Amino acid sequence: MNYIFTNLLGTFILDEKLTVIDSLPFKSVEEYKNKKKSEEKLQKKHDAKPLPKERLLQVLLLFKDAKYYQDFYQRNLELTKEGLKNAVNEDNLIMQAIANINELDKISNTMSKRLREWYSLYYPELSEEIEDHEKYVESVLEQERGAATFGADLGAIDVEEMKLLAGRIISLYALRKQHELYLQKIMEKYCPNLLELAGATIAARLIELGKGLKHLALLPASTVQLLGAEKALFRHLKTGSRSPKYGVIINHPLIQNAQRDKKGKAARMLADKLSLCARLDFFKGEFKAPDYRKDLEGKLA
Amino acid sequence: MNYIFTNLLGTFILDEKLTVIDSLPFKSVEEYKNKKKSEEKLQKKHDAKPLPKERLLQVLLLFKDAKYYQDFYQRNLELTKEGLKNAVNEDNLIMQAIANINELDKISNTMSKRLREWYSLYYPELSEEIEDHEKYVESVLEQERGAATFGADLGAIDVEEMKLLAGRIISLYALRKQHELYLQKIMEKYCPNLLELAGATIAARLIELGKGLKHLALLPASTVQLLGAEKALFRHLKTGSRSPKYGVIINHPLIQNAQRDKKGKAARMLADKLSLCARLDFFKGEFKAPDYRKDLEGKLA
Repeated sequence: MNYIFTNLLGTFILDEKLTVIDSLPFKSVEEYKNKKKSEEKLQKKHDAKPLPKERLLQVLLLFKDAKYYQDFYQRNLELTKEGLKNAVNEDNLIMQAIANINELDKISNTMSKRLREWYSLYYPELSEEIEDHEKYVESVLEQERGAATFGADLGAIDVEEMKLLAGRIISLYALRKQHELYLQKIMEKYCPNLLELAGATIAARLIELGKGLKHLALLPASTVQLLGAEKALFRHLKTGSRSPKYGVIINHPLIQNAQRDKKGKAARMLADKLSLCARLDFFKGEFKAPDYRKDLEGKLA
Repeated sequence: MNYIFTNLLGTFILDEKLTVIDSLPFKSVEEYKNKKKSEEKLQKKHDAKPLPKERLLQVLLLFKDAKYYQDFYQRNLELTKEGLKNAVNEDNLIMQAIANINELDKISNTMSKRLREWYSLYYPELSEEIEDHEKYVESVLEQERGAATFGADLGAIDVEEMKLLAGRIISLYALRKQHELYLQKIMEKYCPNLLELAGATIAARLIELGKGLKHLALLPASTVQLLGAEKALFRHLKTGSRSPKYGVIINHPLIQNAQRDKKGKAARMLADKLSLCARLDFFKGEFKAPDYRKDLEGKLA
């Protein structure tokens, strides 16, 4: 009785004592991927059976031999490399970009607060006047100080230092906007439906929280509705506090613009459609999001 | 019996019934500051006594009259404004700059870690190769990807996005360096001794933690030694864990370079001299820090 066995190095025919009696070596990893061909070829020639599992260890020990080892190592490395290269897909890029957007939001916030404190030594009225951080930072760069200020008359080098900080904050806000454009670009191809209905930021957050488009597509709509509200959800389950109605989709215009008592309903309907979008995108379906949007807008108006 | 009374509006002579019988109005807040002059003048003329405390309320009510109120309000505003303007001194500027340096350190750290994760999709080997965050970020911008990488073959727009992030991180590192130069500039005039012995960053942290140069100058050297180690100190007092030997001065070269068993002694000696420096600087004393440094270097060699 002969056995047939294939690994990265080739297809081998072994006799009862597990000595190699015939083989078709592979010249590359590519040939390994088409191993069926060479297996069929040798199969016909020798009428061999597949190796029984209990004899596998013995055969593996055979390949520890020096004449196989170097090749084996090289092929394995090649295969791993290819696997790693292919493991990176749009999901990873989206998740990194949205994670950085989240961090940039926190960072710009911290830096803007610092600027408010610092610049208020010189021009305290401005901080009271402008509530929005980004607009405040812009005003520090563009607006002259009012004459009737309560602020101290600092030297030019002191004010310059604050303006340098303001400039850096502005450039972080710009980077955040650039990241959004980038997300848009990836998603137009990767998940056009989700992008169309959710917008770049929310779509990216859903993919991030859903751990990739595939996994997101497999989640029930009720889970999609609450992605990002895990803390409130577990508090609800543990203490019986009110259950959350929405996670990251709270920032969606359809929910923002819904009447207060209809927000929960809006969230459920939106999550249903978002879930459908994720499935359409993952299974490369049609572009139906515009219809969904119209449908939702009609029902929620 | 006549009384004499002065407020922001002028010096007044009041009779027994607290009616104004003579006055020298002030034309500005400046005259109020030199009130002694006009008080002496009227004093001579009327032989008046200072207003007894129990009659103060009555007099104050007198000035609620409409003919005084507007002036009173204006003068007060002026005085407050002046007070606020003068309340801002080098301490405030130093504290803001060093607080921002502290924040920038954390922020660059967060952003560099994000870049490492993101760029490793494309070129994972680089992150293993370079441990230092700043050098890593520079390499992302300057170094081509190695040919034998395990990273994915991403599109140009994907890599560009990561390089944009790298560029922003570099500019935050640059801002931090600029802040240090700025601190140096302020401190050369404000606290040359402390600057000379501690260096810009440590000196600024001491002023920050000591809540200003004045307060720092009044602290005992043993407190200066532990500024920045409050957490460890209170843990020591509460649980009897080992007492901390140094706070922010731990980064000083004299302590960094000291032998392990001499670090505590070095910290104590350095704190002594730093405390002297703070006092010299606050009381505008001589520039003795270079002597202190030589002395310490000799004793710790």
